[in-house]
Amino acid sequence: MNYELTHLPQRTSKPRDSGFTMAMDKGLSLRETENFVEVASEYVDIVKLGWATSFVTPNLDQKLDIYRAAGIPVYFGGTLFEAFIVRGQFEDYRRLLDKYKLQFAEISDGSIEMDHELKCKYIRTLAEQTTVLSEVGSKDDQKIIPPYKWISLMQAELDAGAWKVIGEARESGNVGLFRSTGEVRSGLVEEILTKIPFEKIIWEAPQKAQQVFFIKLLGANVNLGNIAPNEIVPLETIRLGLRGDTFTHFLDKGMLDKLV
Amino acid sequence: MNYELTHLPQRTSKPRDSGFTMAMDKGLSLRETENFVEVASEYVDIVKLGWATSFVTPNLDQKLDIYRAAGIPVYFGGTLFEAFIVRGQFEDYRRLLDKYKLQFAEISDGSIEMDHELKCKYIRTLAEQTTVLSEVGSKDDQKIIPPYKWISLMQAELDAGAWKVIGEARESGNVGLFRSTGEVRSGLVEEILTKIPFEKIIWEAPQKAQQVFFIKLLGANVNLGNIAPNEIVPLETIRLGLRGDTFTHFLDKGMLDKLV
Amino acid sequence: MNYELTHLPQRTSKPRDSGFTMAMDKGLSLRETENFVEVASEYVDIVKLGWATSFVTPNLDQKLDIYRAAGIPVYFGGTLFEAFIVRGQFEDYRRLLDKYKLQFAEISDGSIEMDHELKCKYIRTLAEQTTVLSEVGSKDDQKIIPPYKWISLMQAELDAGAWKVIGEARESGNVGLFRSTGEVRSGLVEEILTKIPFEKIIWEAPQKAQQVFFIKLLGANVNLGNIAPNEIVPLETIRLGLRGDTFTHFLDKGMLDKLV
Repeated sequence: MNYELTHLPQRTSKPRDSGFTMAMDKGLSLRETENFVEVASEYVDIVKLGWATSFVTPNLDQKLDIYRAAGIPVYFGGTLFEAFIVRGQFEDYRRLLDKYKLQFAEISDGSIEMDHELKCKYIRTLAEQTTVLSEVGSKDDQKIIPPYKWISLMQAELDAGAWKVIGEARESGNVGLFRSTGEVRSGLVEEILTKIPFEKIIWEAPQKAQQVFFIKLLGANVNLGNIAPNEIVPLETIRLGLRGDTFTHFLDKGMLDKLV
Repeated sequence: MNYELTHLPQRTSKPRDSGFTMAMDKGLSLRETENFVEVASEYVDIVKLGWATSFVTPNLDQKLDIYRAAGIPVYFGGTLFEAFIVRGQFEDYRRLLDKYKLQFAEISDGSIEMDHELKCKYIRTLAEQTTVLSEVGSKDDQKIIPPYKWISLMQAELDAGAWKVIGEARESGNVGLFRSTGEVRSGLVEEILTKIPFEKIIWEAPQKAQQVFFIKLLGANVNLGNIAPNEIVPLETIRLGLRGDTFTHFLDKGMLDKLV
Repeated sequence: MNYELTHLPQRTSKPRDSGFTMAMDKGLSLRETENFVEVASEYVDIVKLGWATSFVTPNLDQKLDIYRAAGIPVYFGGTLFEAFIVRGQFEDYRRLLDKYKLQFAEISDGSIEMDHELKCKYIRTLAEQTTVLSEVGSKDDQKIIPPYKWISLMQAELDAGAWKVIGEARESGNVGLFRSTGEVRSGLVEEILTKIPFEKIIWEAPQKAQQVFFIKLLGANVNLGNIAPNEIVPLETIRLGLRGDTFTHFLDKGMLDKLV
């Protein structure tokens, strides 16, 4: 930090199990990746190459080298896993992870219907090769999963070997955990938390109001995902109570009363 | 491409007559232009320097050199043409195109009222000097042009020598082809397509839902425009059925059924 | 400018007292700062490091050097002032301004309740050390300040030594001067202008429709703030009547009539 401020919430530091930030790279150039890493390497714990953007982005090898040199693990978006699976190319996918030396992999079923036992089998298999993040929730805004089902899916995926589970929101933040307006399905979130430990969940929360909701509910060290590269610094200020939205949240009432 | 996937829609390759992507540069710096070209040169067929941004962007010569070296033609937004015309400076505009060695020019009347025969005369004149893109539709969200009128304007402008016609949407995607909410005027689009060949039209579609609409209606190789630089990679994944929105669109039902 | 156009509104030039543009940097990397300066140094009069982003952005010294070399003064967002004040660290804040050789400072009370005489006392004190910008308006969209109160607050802060006063809007443009939809509280703006000279006010106007409103109401040389780095070139075209939104605003009716 560039200077000293008292009364800040205690933040976890790398390697983080909670207070974890997952950023989404949806096609940065090499120099943009360097710019991102310069600003964010302290604050970003893992980078997702969004959905199948890794298929069309040139210079994938060099991009991975930049993230590797900055100590930030990278994984392919779950949609890419689904693209290989639906084509019967799972073995190709496994080879791809090895070829690019990826230590994390996401397993999801957001764009397809998949038998859940089959999904868990893929989790078990890939967990022998990588650290698995599994995602729950559909990208289809018409498909509403009731809370008890979210919980049983998450628990089964953790049992199958997922390191953490991700709550779906897309890049836009208007499906899965959120209503089509972007509003948090807060009853769903609270019910999930009665059963699943909060450090096992990464909440996709691309919109600022969503990030603020989770930080107010669960504290500075909630795990958040799908953060755009240029929103990493702003998010860190929200976690620390240094942006208007959470400014008074971490302060004692006595401190505020002295000014009026 | 970085790896192999089966069952992808066939994409056209450069120089493209259909499957064409027009990107909008609204003031990139030189290094940002280089970043853009690094990521997008395979996927971008032409770049528009949005409206009159070329007037205030420094280093215009060097920017044009970067695009030229990447093999991507550049043209000035139609609003700049209108700015010269309304000031009686058409001859200055012609000299400007020559000075910057631009091989494409846009002719539009989105911000002004112009007699259509006069517009067609400008198309005929500029078509002797450059390849002309002409734009139909108003930037004024109160000005609704009925479908039969869109068709007759487009046909007259193609007859006057326009290489392709552009359907207006602005940078924001909320006029012309679209309602003020951004929703596609789908009846308009379908009626236009009964008369004008689809490869002669570039649909401005800056919003993701708009791109998805046109790709589902007209396939991977529809011509799209006003794409922001950082949305070029995402658009290419939508064209290829590798993003949630079009994921199942290009697949056989049998492939999907095997997973449930 | 890259070429000549007649009939443009006269723009002020640096150092500007009116026609002033304040940009918001919310965490640019060093190279992104260089890119920004390359494009915008003619058009940006001052840069705000948004709220407390300067706390978490690395390389703060080097970033300030880049802006200094480009002749663009920098100041810390008002939320940072509030963060120091609420912690009883005002003297630390004064030392911080000296340490980074900042010639401007913002004083605000957007995230806290502060006695107005106390706020004016801070303005008087900091005005001995720097040029003070003071901000009126709350970041809380529930807190509506009536027009007469805006005027008396602004006047008192100018009397206390503020160089200019800023009308609050946040990065998002949906509080203070604006309704939660982003719509301008135009009656408020007009009433303020009956009492406070327009060159003493910087209107935060991050959204394009807001910039257009102020330029149509107050001309090309209105002072605007909270402009995103990649919107500086577009804003300059709006000021000059070279974008659709203000295209006809600065032209004589006779010029337009000649085309129909």
